Amino acid sequence: MSQFENVTIVKKANTYFEGKVTSRTVLFADGTKKTLGIMLPGEYEFGTDDKEIMEILAGELQILLPGDEQWITISGEGEFTVPAQSKFKLKVTGVTDYCCSYIQE
Amino acid sequence: MSQFENVTIVKKANTYFEGKVTSRTVLFADGTKKTLGIMLPGEYEFGTDDKEIMEILAGELQILLPGDEQWITISGEGEFTVPAQSKFKLKVTGVTDYCCSYIQE
Repeated sequence: MSQFENVTIVKKANTYFEGKVTSRTVLFADGTKKTLGIMLPGEYEFGTDDKEIMEILAGELQILLPGDEQWITISGEGEFTVPAQSKFKLKVTGVTDYCCSYIQE
Repeated sequence: MSQFENVTIVKKANTYFEGKVTSRTVLFADGTKKTLGIMLPGEYEFGTDDKEIMEILAGELQILLPGDEQWITISGEGEFTVPAQSKFKLKVTGVTDYCCSYIQE
């Protein structure tokens, strides 16, 4: 799916890490939410509320999921899932375009 | 208007200047188009095809419009218009969140 139709988009961006990570919120008719974001090179730690499915649309990054000891590498496209109420680390080495889906369980 | 309803959003970002300027394309039912974007600090020159109305949602920047000799400063919110088929320069000094409307004449 290259575009989302019949959605609501919040105009103002969400800004983290002095703008090196930004996203826009997309709201769907079924009450679900996604964010479309950009991460510039850097090292980041994020915490989740809901479970998150992170689809990497383009980019270069390494991911350390909660409880893991080994970093996952994504170069180009990819996907990973982060449990609710947890923390994960990212080392972004190339501009990364992502779509994050929030899953309420 | 803090959000756009019943719109289509293109999933992939538009990326310029090594990711220091990125945007997402929003398509409206009436056939018009806007982009929601982020500019990180830096100096940029852009060219327009259509006339553009740039709404600054948040940010710190200076703008040199085509034919002008004096830079305009926006700190916080603001708006400026760029004619079709022209070039304009920006000096962005703080992370800038914008909404650009493309006006076909």
